[in-house]
Amino acid sequence: MNATRRDVLMGASMMGAFQRGGVTRYVRYKKGDTTSYGVLEGDVIRPVQGYLFGEHRTASEKVSLSSVKLLYPVQPPKVLAVGRNYRSHLGSAPPPPRPEIFYKPTTCLQNPEDAIVIPKDARNVHYEGELVVVMGKRAQNISKEEAAGAIFGVTCGNDVSERDWQGGPNQDMQWWRAKGADTFGPLGPCIARGLNYSNVLLTTRLNGEVKQKQSTSDLLFDCPTVVSFISRYVTLEPGDVIYTGTPGNTSPMKAGDIVEVEIEGIGVLRNKLA
Amino acid sequence: MNATRRDVLMGASMMGAFQRGGVTRYVRYKKGDTTSYGVLEGDVIRPVQGYLFGEHRTASEKVSLSSVKLLYPVQPPKVLAVGRNYRSHLGSAPPPPRPEIFYKPTTCLQNPEDAIVIPKDARNVHYEGELVVVMGKRAQNISKEEAAGAIFGVTCGNDVSERDWQGGPNQDMQWWRAKGADTFGPLGPCIARGLNYSNVLLTTRLNGEVKQKQSTSDLLFDCPTVVSFISRYVTLEPGDVIYTGTPGNTSPMKAGDIVEVEIEGIGVLRNKLA
Repeated sequence: MNATRRDVLMGASMMGAFQRGGVTRYVRYKKGDTTSYGVLEGDVIRPVQGYLFGEHRTASEKVSLSSVKLLYPVQPPKVLAVGRNYRSHLGSAPPPPRPEIFYKPTTCLQNPEDAIVIPKDARNVHYEGELVVVMGKRAQNISKEEAAGAIFGVTCGNDVSERDWQGGPNQDMQWWRAKGADTFGPLGPCIARGLNYSNVLLTTRLNGEVKQKQSTSDLLFDCPTVVSFISRYVTLEPGDVIYTGTPGNTSPMKAGDIVEVEIEGIGVLRNKLA
Repeated sequence: MNATRRDVLMGASMMGAFQRGGVTRYVRYKKGDTTSYGVLEGDVIRPVQGYLFGEHRTASEKVSLSSVKLLYPVQPPKVLAVGRNYRSHLGSAPPPPRPEIFYKPTTCLQNPEDAIVIPKDARNVHYEGELVVVMGKRAQNISKEEAAGAIFGVTCGNDVSERDWQGGPNQDMQWWRAKGADTFGPLGPCIARGLNYSNVLLTTRLNGEVKQKQSTSDLLFDCPTVVSFISRYVTLEPGDVIYTGTPGNTSPMKAGDIVEVEIEGIGVLRNKLA
């Protein structure tokens, strides 16, 4: 990647934000044949030693950001997502009485900068820019208050969706490939820990044009509410990720397009379509 | 467990079948604090050394079946399932034009003999006895012929389902808790490798009464077809499991009930409701 890498990753809106107190940005990266977690500090990464969701420390060693390949920032045991979680995305549908949850398979996760590959017989592939929660603790039937403490941090996600498979005249019963085809889950570039994610601006751009722009304060069910609700039925584990829903409208993408999901305080998740 | 354990595990219909040539039965078990894979031979288990889905050998050591706790026989990266895959289960619905796939979370898996726990606000929890495929190889866009070779073996599964969440007047958009609540995925007791799973009898009993009874030869989409179809969109990995669908009708279960899924040549998966 070229010299503008840090600008792209971090986003114009938050240059310098990494220096603000209280927020730590974790990345997962590959250098040579070795995959590691690290803490991003400007143009350098300090490797993490230990267990990310438990005892760990940051090494004094510094690795240049430009010398590594960034990967999706966590390898989750499972991937969950919320549908219809912004009023602006509901269309004519009524607000749901409770969070509407679904699964994406872990095999759909994709790295920052890597390609979203349109399946051969897909005709209507849309972006969905989303705030994504990363769990830090095991959670079974926990309260909203406990949920806030069980969230490790947040990242950017693109809940890529094939609309014809999801809801067309020949739709599947469930969204398994509409939301779960390989590469349909870009995630990254980092996990921001310590960020006040209840009110950050989410922006999605297609080929540079702003397509979605909304604050996470407009979520119908906020992050702790979603986590608490899921945990009443399905145990959450450290590293599990939850895509929290997309605002506004979406549109089709085609091979060659560039899609970016930017969230204030986190950075920019950029992928090319192939 | 008492002296009838082997009879229960193996099923009256297949006593002695473990001695027939060509079929190997793999179990996962806990002895003290150690979890291992092993090959079941009558009343004893021979521990597996190495990688189950690659190079491995069977130790000469013998562990008594009665001295261990059997676990669900594989820890899959992901769990998939097929809906509407027997004509007898379709009701008034037309046969699907392609396999109808959905996900269950790995956290719903449950061991043989352990409890299916009815969630506090669940009102209509049904059994679904099913043949379950265990993948042995990574599979991306493979043919039916290749799929047959990528299947490691088969086991018994119970695709426990809350019908009101799945399809009632107040149903969820997706089946995330209807099919995915904790303990809704009993699996086992062993993986049969080398079995001709294209024509084996599947029987489900509730408190001893036969509720479902059908040959896997009646599957609308057979195992290699399902694996090949999924692999066009979603990469399958070694250890992934696929519940292949349930025949006939189902009915509600209540706390204290005993549900058994028996498949010829595999054994009996038995769970109590709590």
